[in-house]
Amino acid sequence: MPVASRIAQFTEESYWVRRMFEEGSRLKKEHGAHNVFDFSLGNPDLDPVKAVKDSILEAAGVNTPGIHGYTPHAGLPELRAAVAEMIQKDEGIAVDENSIVMTAGATGALNVAIRTVVNPGDEVIILVPYFCEYPYYIDNHGGRAIKVPTLADFLPDLGAIDASITPRTAAILITSPNNPTGRVYNEQVIRGLADLLIYRSSQIGRPIVLIADEPYKVITFDGVRVPSILQAYPNSMTVSSFGKSHSIPGERLGYIAMSPGMNDAARTMDGLILSNRILGFVHAPALAQRAARRVLRDIIDVSVYQRRRDRFYQALSDFGYELIWPEGAFYFFPKTPLPDDATFVELLKKRLILTVPGTGYGMPGHFRIAYCVPDETIEGSLRGFEDAIDEARAVPSGKMARRM
Amino acid sequence: MPVASRIAQFTEESYWVRRMFEEGSRLKKEHGAHNVFDFSLGNPDLDPVKAVKDSILEAAGVNTPGIHGYTPHAGLPELRAAVAEMIQKDEGIAVDENSIVMTAGATGALNVAIRTVVNPGDEVIILVPYFCEYPYYIDNHGGRAIKVPTLADFLPDLGAIDASITPRTAAILITSPNNPTGRVYNEQVIRGLADLLIYRSSQIGRPIVLIADEPYKVITFDGVRVPSILQAYPNSMTVSSFGKSHSIPGERLGYIAMSPGMNDAARTMDGLILSNRILGFVHAPALAQRAARRVLRDIIDVSVYQRRRDRFYQALSDFGYELIWPEGAFYFFPKTPLPDDATFVELLKKRLILTVPGTGYGMPGHFRIAYCVPDETIEGSLRGFEDAIDEARAVPSGKMARRM
Repeated sequence: MPVASRIAQFTEESYWVRRMFEEGSRLKKEHGAHNVFDFSLGNPDLDPVKAVKDSILEAAGVNTPGIHGYTPHAGLPELRAAVAEMIQKDEGIAVDENSIVMTAGATGALNVAIRTVVNPGDEVIILVPYFCEYPYYIDNHGGRAIKVPTLADFLPDLGAIDASITPRTAAILITSPNNPTGRVYNEQVIRGLADLLIYRSSQIGRPIVLIADEPYKVITFDGVRVPSILQAYPNSMTVSSFGKSHSIPGERLGYIAMSPGMNDAARTMDGLILSNRILGFVHAPALAQRAARRVLRDIIDVSVYQRRRDRFYQALSDFGYELIWPEGAFYFFPKTPLPDDATFVELLKKRLILTVPGTGYGMPGHFRIAYCVPDETIEGSLRGFEDAIDEARAVPSGKMARRM
Repeated sequence: MPVASRIAQFTEESYWVRRMFEEGSRLKKEHGAHNVFDFSLGNPDLDPVKAVKDSILEAAGVNTPGIHGYTPHAGLPELRAAVAEMIQKDEGIAVDENSIVMTAGATGALNVAIRTVVNPGDEVIILVPYFCEYPYYIDNHGGRAIKVPTLADFLPDLGAIDASITPRTAAILITSPNNPTGRVYNEQVIRGLADLLIYRSSQIGRPIVLIADEPYKVITFDGVRVPSILQAYPNSMTVSSFGKSHSIPGERLGYIAMSPGMNDAARTMDGLILSNRILGFVHAPALAQRAARRVLRDIIDVSVYQRRRDRFYQALSDFGYELIWPEGAFYFFPKTPLPDDATFVELLKKRLILTVPGTGYGMPGHFRIAYCVPDETIEGSLRGFEDAIDEARAVPSGKMARRM
């Protein structure tokens, strides 16, 4: 077999994702796409605002020679400067363009960050439930994912993190607003985490890098604010994208912002830029870079997601689902009313509702609902959500498991 | 230091590239950009043809909802089908869309291919001189680059390749038309290589994957054709891009085409798609994918590069430079008239001519000239090229080395 063993293993592992998609497609063909309620993907349904579309069109129409040629590996200087200025304003921290690398989305950024700070065999801490692909990103660069449980409300368990740090700990990767839970880590949590990392870094004699994955940073509700990671902890980098905030995930644009307090900052930035180049990104797509500068603040209407959260949360709670009240992003991560999440996801699928079992996020007994979908999809699904929990409660779980 | 040791080492190694750029920028500032003759970069000066620019503009103007959303990880099905059809026509081999993965350029494609077939510790054969970043791509995925010399005319030395194959050989990576030499591997060479790989694969009991990096495939001169790799060897994949052929390297679009004869083909394709996803590309940029389908054949005017090659080659030969007659791409790789290539590149720089020492390509005693630059740059540089070789010949090399 020409396939590397880890890749073969990962494809095996992700066949369920593929089966899920294939079955989703089959259901849509069979029943009509409008009769299937697809909550399985974080692909935002909202259209980019007009200013963003206009800016893309304008960038595409520029006729200057070389406009489609290579940009610097770190990105266009004027875009890096604009991103730095935005962060400076939002977080009150003095970052300039030399702390910014434009990347192919947050996913590209995460791989670049991990490649830069992880030696083969090093450990990277992630918090359970984690975004389902984090373990792959860490493995890409020879790292070991150390999966640390969170508290009952999905906030970081500092004691558990403390206990998981070893001399091999290169980094901890967090995401807030969280995918899959929607939880936002508050100021106090971040301050506690920073203190812990400062203490343990000095103890193990290496700077533990805090990588904060923040593609949902501006998608928060009720005025909740995401505290500044760069401010809180010197050896930090935040990763973000325009995918969710601007509804252009297909155009693959994001960035890494490095704290100016980073240990050995110049060399770390050189490492990030080199990794961006040699991992094969070379640089973020030129046209998206050109389009982005003028529309950094032209994000989608977050109140739409908030309205959906309110409505959908209420309905799910009324049906008896146990879930936390998300403060951001566009996900719910309820408990499944049956111990086996895959079984319950099947019950939903019988009602043409597509969701993702929590097992993929490292937390069985839960499932993820992505509500970046039209209101009609939510409304149309409610009956099915109610039926499914009723069926789950009616049937003893042992019997259900045998039936699957 | 938060930087992984290999990345720190690579950034150290590539500081000369950076110094070169910085010095180039300084020279341009000091003397005016038009008085500096920059042959250091493979960034094509030709503008994309009108059809390509129109198609990008059209793609940017489409208003269908979701147009900037995620595409499938393997790329848009209609684009994959169009690329497959093109290859089928050009190479007479039955590939369909299920053998194609759209990628972020050829560089992204190479990383995806290597990630898919290389286990940590596996060996990947590259031929000297190699494109300067190949060793990094291989290291990214825990592989070991095995550097094998070529013949005097830069064609593969099958005996040397044979001798370098071990049970750990996962792949061999070739590029034709070659960067940095401009050499095109002919039918006979490819057939010989294929026979060797078939024989040795069966001997070591694993399919050695032939990865052919072909971003310059359509940039050949005097009617020279690049033989079909996919046709010649079943366990092969070719990697290409629209960067050089269409002069849009900044838009990061390329693809992998897998031979339908690939061992365990379905699983290998699954591996490629998974690697494209988890390495952080997710998928190739959406807008570029949409723009590409209608303009697959709308390449730049290759005769411009051919005319430059003719003129420039003649002049360099007349001055006394030893170089091969390139059959494709847009590079010369002459011998330096001094044993130390860095020293000679400095002599050129004194004449405001920027080139790259061969050491970076694994072959000291040579230097690379990228002639994807305006005719005026070539004409303006000739006097300096002549002076530099004269100076090099006048000074005993021992003395020159001491002077540097």
